[in-house]
Amino acid sequence: MTHTTENADATEITDTADGTTRRRVLGASLATAALAGTGLATAGAARAERPAGAGPSVGILLYDGFSLLDPTGPAEVLSRLPDATVTMIGEARGPVRTDTGDTAVLAERAIAEVSRLDVLLVPGGGERGTTGAMANPALLSWIRAVHRHTAWTTSVCTGSLILAAAGLLEGRRATTHWASAEYLENELGVPYVPARYVPSGRIVTAAGVSAGVDMALYLAARIAGETVARGIQLAIEYDPTPPFDSGNAAEAGPELRALALRLIAESGT
Amino acid sequence: MTHTTENADATEITDTADGTTRRRVLGASLATAALAGTGLATAGAARAERPAGAGPSVGILLYDGFSLLDPTGPAEVLSRLPDATVTMIGEARGPVRTDTGDTAVLAERAIAEVSRLDVLLVPGGGERGTTGAMANPALLSWIRAVHRHTAWTTSVCTGSLILAAAGLLEGRRATTHWASAEYLENELGVPYVPARYVPSGRIVTAAGVSAGVDMALYLAARIAGETVARGIQLAIEYDPTPPFDSGNAAEAGPELRALALRLIAESGT
Repeated sequence: MTHTTENADATEITDTADGTTRRRVLGASLATAALAGTGLATAGAARAERPAGAGPSVGILLYDGFSLLDPTGPAEVLSRLPDATVTMIGEARGPVRTDTGDTAVLAERAIAEVSRLDVLLVPGGGERGTTGAMANPALLSWIRAVHRHTAWTTSVCTGSLILAAAGLLEGRRATTHWASAEYLENELGVPYVPARYVPSGRIVTAAGVSAGVDMALYLAARIAGETVARGIQLAIEYDPTPPFDSGNAAEAGPELRALALRLIAESGT
Repeated sequence: MTHTTENADATEITDTADGTTRRRVLGASLATAALAGTGLATAGAARAERPAGAGPSVGILLYDGFSLLDPTGPAEVLSRLPDATVTMIGEARGPVRTDTGDTAVLAERAIAEVSRLDVLLVPGGGERGTTGAMANPALLSWIRAVHRHTAWTTSVCTGSLILAAAGLLEGRRATTHWASAEYLENELGVPYVPARYVPSGRIVTAAGVSAGVDMALYLAARIAGETVARGIQLAIEYDPTPPFDSGNAAEAGPELRALALRLIAESGT
């Protein structure tokens, strides 16, 4: 068993099994020392003072054909909120497979087991996954029921089409994957906003795939304050420096847009 | 059964079951039309002409306590490479749980079943997960064996400490999560480079958590060319716009660094 030393070099831990001392890989005990006596210490101190599960309950709906980064980017961010629980939820418990068919994430709970959440997140998916979820009355009915009591109901990418299909975006503006903007406007009657994320009351929609990370940091700030959100950004070293500048559809030419859609379609199942 | 129309409005699909016509959510058939006659069409055309599985084989090693975004960000990018297969690999097949304990991703193959990969990616984890993998002879031996034949051996976050423990970083410089830089240098003898990703021959290491997405776009360009990589960036709408500018440890003060470490430690299991 290992434990953190309380009164010695805070960057070391002692292995009580054999008495040897070694440095922590992430130097985490340093944090406790540096925070002592600062206001920031309360972000962590709250954990011990509150009953288990007293932090925000975040539920992410998985469905066959979701896009992998849509739920996992926000989950990485929101799971760092003090005392948060993040639960992957499926129509049934068990593995739920992505749009490419390569990967499966475990749904820890079935929708029938979950009726209250502080934060609901609906990810996007490929053509098959998105249209499947939009046409699934059990999922739409569950989304409507859970939404009644959430603090935040959110989506990433084409997840906003699913929120619209559930009737949640009436009278609101929203964003979605750039390639679904026309569908959102013309087929679902929801004005499209070309932004990374669009708050509208307690509903927040994010743009395509990677935009969920930006939205999750916004949510983290609304839930736990800007200082904690900045701490999470540093924790995941989110100082994005893509090698190219081709992620904005408004600046991309028609050939690159066509290529992007083709890569999505051909990697899908 | 639905199929794409070949000669009509390329943005529509026909449902042959009931004869109705509806628009595609992602308008993907538009891509085929717009690409016809351009050089870019070959990026997709290659799929039909090559045997199944002729694209790059990407293997991602999962271990108990990995950080969720480390493998899933790069998987989202690399799975869009034409004909790519992305396989999650564990010491055994089955669910592998993250550092927070909240989420499990399915390992589709056990290490004993995989001996050749074009791309190996080793994600990072929390304190327990990273040190556990670094001390697991079966994992280290497998990494060494697979590395002999890879085109690219890569890591995200503290995954570089695991590559170092396997002996792969001797004589090289590398990056890692900013909080592990001292450990990488002082305990493992590998000079730390504060960059998003550090190519060194056919080994590429990425910085903390979110840096894997940037590295994956770099790899995509090296594997399939810059045009395809730019197409993937647009496909995942990776035009990052975080609400804050706090992701760079070199620019963060000691209190924010301490808070970040505390949020990591307290969200871990």
